[in-house]
Amino acid sequence: MNKKPFDPKAFRNALGAFTTGVTVVTTKDEHGIKAGLTANSFNSVSLDPPLVLWSVGKKSSAYEAFTNSEYFAVHILSAEQENISSQFAKSGVDRFAGFQTDTGPGGVPVLRDCSAVFVCKTHERYAGGDHVIIVGEVIDFESSGEAPLVFQGGKYALAVQRTKPSHNDISSVGIDWLGFLLKRAYEQLFTPVREFCHASGLRDYHYFVLSFLGMGNDRLLTDINEQLKFIGIDPGLHNLEPLISMGLISRSEDRSSPRLHLTTRGRDFLLETAAIGKRAESDSFASFDYTEQQVLKNLLVGLISNTAKNVPEIWRKEHIWQENNIWGAPVAYKGQ
Amino acid sequence: MNKKPFDPKAFRNALGAFTTGVTVVTTKDEHGIKAGLTANSFNSVSLDPPLVLWSVGKKSSAYEAFTNSEYFAVHILSAEQENISSQFAKSGVDRFAGFQTDTGPGGVPVLRDCSAVFVCKTHERYAGGDHVIIVGEVIDFESSGEAPLVFQGGKYALAVQRTKPSHNDISSVGIDWLGFLLKRAYEQLFTPVREFCHASGLRDYHYFVLSFLGMGNDRLLTDINEQLKFIGIDPGLHNLEPLISMGLISRSEDRSSPRLHLTTRGRDFLLETAAIGKRAESDSFASFDYTEQQVLKNLLVGLISNTAKNVPEIWRKEHIWQENNIWGAPVAYKGQ
Repeated sequence: MNKKPFDPKAFRNALGAFTTGVTVVTTKDEHGIKAGLTANSFNSVSLDPPLVLWSVGKKSSAYEAFTNSEYFAVHILSAEQENISSQFAKSGVDRFAGFQTDTGPGGVPVLRDCSAVFVCKTHERYAGGDHVIIVGEVIDFESSGEAPLVFQGGKYALAVQRTKPSHNDISSVGIDWLGFLLKRAYEQLFTPVREFCHASGLRDYHYFVLSFLGMGNDRLLTDINEQLKFIGIDPGLHNLEPLISMGLISRSEDRSSPRLHLTTRGRDFLLETAAIGKRAESDSFASFDYTEQQVLKNLLVGLISNTAKNVPEIWRKEHIWQENNIWGAPVAYKGQ
Repeated sequence: MNKKPFDPKAFRNALGAFTTGVTVVTTKDEHGIKAGLTANSFNSVSLDPPLVLWSVGKKSSAYEAFTNSEYFAVHILSAEQENISSQFAKSGVDRFAGFQTDTGPGGVPVLRDCSAVFVCKTHERYAGGDHVIIVGEVIDFESSGEAPLVFQGGKYALAVQRTKPSHNDISSVGIDWLGFLLKRAYEQLFTPVREFCHASGLRDYHYFVLSFLGMGNDRLLTDINEQLKFIGIDPGLHNLEPLISMGLISRSEDRSSPRLHLTTRGRDFLLETAAIGKRAESDSFASFDYTEQQVLKNLLVGLISNTAKNVPEIWRKEHIWQENNIWGAPVAYKGQ
């Protein structure tokens, strides 16, 4: 235990270990002005009668409004509403600016697209040190099923259900090494793309040559070969013939330093593989909710960043991903 | 909004959208008997004075103990304490059985290894419908930094920090396709293993032959070739010579259906690659906490399970992973 004199910062940190959702509580004050604030002190109290509570700081700019109002609405924010959480925590701004509201019972402003909303009639206000505990009787509510925003350790988070893999899952995976899991997940996801290529007479080697050209066209064969080696493909064992005879790429005549060019037909072929790949992604996400999809991609980006030192120079040339990229601008990670 | 007459089940479901940590609250009653229960109605109230609150149901078996006790302890459970949460939610059992406790101020039992513990002096008890709201003044606390257990939508969960990848991370990743992220994460993780093999004169092909034999020794070459094709390696482009001349495998004389055997030397080589792989895994987890590592593996197992239909028959033969497996029994996923 903390034997030192009471340390408010350490206390706050310790409280941060308790994970919470994020709510915005709104009301209309006695002058008809909308007020609201971000709070994570919400919780349920009673089912019969249906009561919930939250606490408002006595120094909060919205304190007066809530000590006078008869009705208020508690919004449980969704994972996509971090911007609402941030805006309702700012001072000196119109916190409602840019967000559409409906009018609920008692005239309270009700925000849209939240995970859940509880419209309450103030039931009790209790003393709670530097805060006031507000207990509300829920008179109306709705929930959307949207994945909620989470707050933990002073930061936004996403919650992922703790699923217990069945015994079958375990034995068919077999080994717990991260490399094994990544490889097997990739190979199973990639299978439909590979089958499409094979049906056209192309091997993995050819797919990756097209793929690299798709990220940056008109490139030196030597550069592409470097990239191939990094993913374990020995270019010396393969040849470009099928790609050239199918009209998917062309090769410059410069014998000393030949360059490869992705043709329009090659671009179309690649876009077809991309569509198959996207479908394979959807299939592989079958049992996942939105948050799990987002968290998985987020963690993979983290892994890639953690092992960036293993990447050879050729993969770091950022212009490859920027110029002549058939995918357009790099698709930013959507996790914000 | 929910226009129907108030539906308690729908109300409870809507409340489930608010994510919480999981606490166990303990006390010693007036007869000196330990009491405790699982609660997720905890929250902070005030910093000065330091107050927290939680609600106890009037029908709870522990209700009497808490209405009489002067002190209580709130434990924020860690991700590894789901069993404590479950046991303190059961009726008719000794909820403390099997868990070590220390004695805190006022004689309250304090559980070990939690994410945080707050020892409180009862400050106020407020009416809250079918519950009583208990406000405690925190007189002592500690926090361990252990990742906390999370409860959402009626189920246990784990919270993963929502990190915003920097612009550099985004542009160096480039494409948001899951297959790309998996492939790149795998290749970067695998690099040290590949470099070790290359230094010994072996290619990916040879590594995977060893690897498949490590999971089940003495197997038909045709079976191994089938497995290789599934991961995009064409066995016809390679030969086993380096493996045989290095004494890592032997090949049966049966020309019509040759079998491969991993030698003791081969086994040692494979264990060496495994050690390098495990180090690479640690490196790739550099910025991850325990929960993130667990969640990533959990999600990858889910992906593998979702795409299991893409796996050829040869990969499904579970005995491969069970018999003659140099790794011993399959390592069960540790996520419980």
